[in-house]
Amino acid sequence: MSVETDVVLYDSETAATLDYAPDGILQHLTTGPYTFETGATLPQLVIGYETWGTLNAEASNAVFIAHALTGDSHVARGASTEPGWWDVLVGPGKTVDTDRYFVVAANMIGGCSGSTGPASLDPTGVAWGSRFPFTTIKDSVRVEARLADELGIKTWHAVFGGSLGGARALEWAIEFPERVRHCVVVAATAEASAEQIAFAQVQTAAIRLDPDFAGGDYYSNDRVPSAGLGIARRLAHITYRTASELDVRFGRAAQGEERPISSHGRERGRYQVESYLDHQADKLAGRFDANSYLVLTEALMSHDVGRGHASLEAALERSLGVQFLVAAVDSDRLYWPEQSEQLAKMLPGDYKVEYISTPIGHDGFLTDIEQLSEPLREIFS
Amino acid sequence: MSVETDVVLYDSETAATLDYAPDGILQHLTTGPYTFETGATLPQLVIGYETWGTLNAEASNAVFIAHALTGDSHVARGASTEPGWWDVLVGPGKTVDTDRYFVVAANMIGGCSGSTGPASLDPTGVAWGSRFPFTTIKDSVRVEARLADELGIKTWHAVFGGSLGGARALEWAIEFPERVRHCVVVAATAEASAEQIAFAQVQTAAIRLDPDFAGGDYYSNDRVPSAGLGIARRLAHITYRTASELDVRFGRAAQGEERPISSHGRERGRYQVESYLDHQADKLAGRFDANSYLVLTEALMSHDVGRGHASLEAALERSLGVQFLVAAVDSDRLYWPEQSEQLAKMLPGDYKVEYISTPIGHDGFLTDIEQLSEPLREIFS
Repeated sequence: MSVETDVVLYDSETAATLDYAPDGILQHLTTGPYTFETGATLPQLVIGYETWGTLNAEASNAVFIAHALTGDSHVARGASTEPGWWDVLVGPGKTVDTDRYFVVAANMIGGCSGSTGPASLDPTGVAWGSRFPFTTIKDSVRVEARLADELGIKTWHAVFGGSLGGARALEWAIEFPERVRHCVVVAATAEASAEQIAFAQVQTAAIRLDPDFAGGDYYSNDRVPSAGLGIARRLAHITYRTASELDVRFGRAAQGEERPISSHGRERGRYQVESYLDHQADKLAGRFDANSYLVLTEALMSHDVGRGHASLEAALERSLGVQFLVAAVDSDRLYWPEQSEQLAKMLPGDYKVEYISTPIGHDGFLTDIEQLSEPLREIFS
Repeated sequence: MSVETDVVLYDSETAATLDYAPDGILQHLTTGPYTFETGATLPQLVIGYETWGTLNAEASNAVFIAHALTGDSHVARGASTEPGWWDVLVGPGKTVDTDRYFVVAANMIGGCSGSTGPASLDPTGVAWGSRFPFTTIKDSVRVEARLADELGIKTWHAVFGGSLGGARALEWAIEFPERVRHCVVVAATAEASAEQIAFAQVQTAAIRLDPDFAGGDYYSNDRVPSAGLGIARRLAHITYRTASELDVRFGRAAQGEERPISSHGRERGRYQVESYLDHQADKLAGRFDANSYLVLTEALMSHDVGRGHASLEAALERSLGVQFLVAAVDSDRLYWPEQSEQLAKMLPGDYKVEYISTPIGHDGFLTDIEQLSEPLREIFS
């Protein structure tokens, strides 16, 4: 194994005495072949990751933060110029205090933000595209375990994530319970529900319908399936928010001077909420690969910590030594609070669900995470 | 104007003495040019409609039933071999008793079930396709008023509908309050909300993305945009049901012997809920025109009884003489019960919302309409 970074060469043998790469700067671990949960193999994996703070001598202060579906490893700004998506939570003096904790975030395998994914090249120099293996959240965690090994982290003080990131955190506690002391699962469940699968199917179908998708092998073409990805994102975004939030923000207003009710055949202008969704779609299409969206969405559909174990209950029982914090967003209509309540009930231990209270829905796990600072202080004191 | 039917020639001059066409048999009224709300004109309109029972001498027993987005005029079986979509409600001895009431249902303009729509031919024999005018629910009602005129119905004893049909019923009470005694609005609102517009946008975008859509002019091509229409239907269907219903029925089960988690690259089998949505998509694509779905969905997005009036309040004030029954489905997450509560509050009069109680969501207006039989008896006694 070797580690590549633009900044500081990391050497696992002498980690304790070396400087780490600066906080919040993307680094790459190149590791060997990997056999996926389904049996497919890739000859080489690269894991893109970032760190903040310093691992202590006992390697007892490491925290793993798992990003959500279209998130990435840039949790906090650190030494970079780009803001992080959880700057409010992670940094010097913050709830997850990087003066005290060594925070690690890895880009999920199958994604497009630094870890091997469909846009990565095979050994002959051709993008994997449609040949990229079906990937699960268990794969994500097993790959992340390699990164932990390389960083000299036997046990995480905490694994922590929301949405798909919460599913990843939970899988850490099921797959490697001996390597996790605390597990924080926000707005996530033990398994994808029928409705979550249903919304995901619509999204994946829209991407595949785009003529520019070309069966997934579009990387050498002039066009990429932005339109299909945009439709997927529009739907996903609606499910991340709530009816009342959209109504308060947009109502039925027209966008600028546009006329949603046309006098010219069927060419019509847009409502504000359509323009807003168009913007969400364009933003994602500008930064995310459609194949990665497919791979990670199908990973989310496959989410079931019980798979490979005697039962869901048996799987959760494995995490007996882990201390959990289960949290939900009260207005979430994608990862319903009832599902978090079920998870808390099924975990070995006596847990009550902590709530983020916001009218905006699922995205509250991003926007209002500081509402959990009190229960989080018990973990990160 | 002339009326065409395969069964009985209807003559408006002598309607009272003629037999009507048999109950539940599609008839056609050909009427003259029509200028849409937006100003576009079609040279001729055909209205497909069905009737049940007999109009009494005073023409005081007529009931108009408005279908929903992909519904049609076949409300009840009558003399046909096909079951109707509200057989439980409409028929001899039923709550809407066709031995006592003369029930009329018309296919909405823009649809594909007997009234002029995008698949209809222009005077040169070419399908209107992309040239079909933008259509609103006010257009639907104004066209239906022509049918009422022709049938000799000055005043409806009741107008009645659910979902888009409820919006049509409400527009009747706003556009022609002097022609409506009772108005039954089930699972519908005074105006489309931001969220309803948002879900609709995703659906229309999916249809337009389908390469077989061909800009809306596909009628002489070999292929029609079934895939895009199918994606729209999948999403719509999810919004018509609930998370808990899907979970109870399907959970995470695989469809038959299919393997949703693939060991062969990204070719994977389906979850049961995916197969269910595929089935819903295929069923609709087999019976509904994609352009009609677009036209009617955009009509639904445009729904706002206040348009053309000083305000929403002023529009609703027009219906002062109409007696309303406002009903909602308690688990509806597309036409939220709160929206029905708002409508009931804003109507001139003292109304409380009646509830259909079911775990299945919006579709409860179809499956469980008999729960309203008690409040309906006050109208149809």
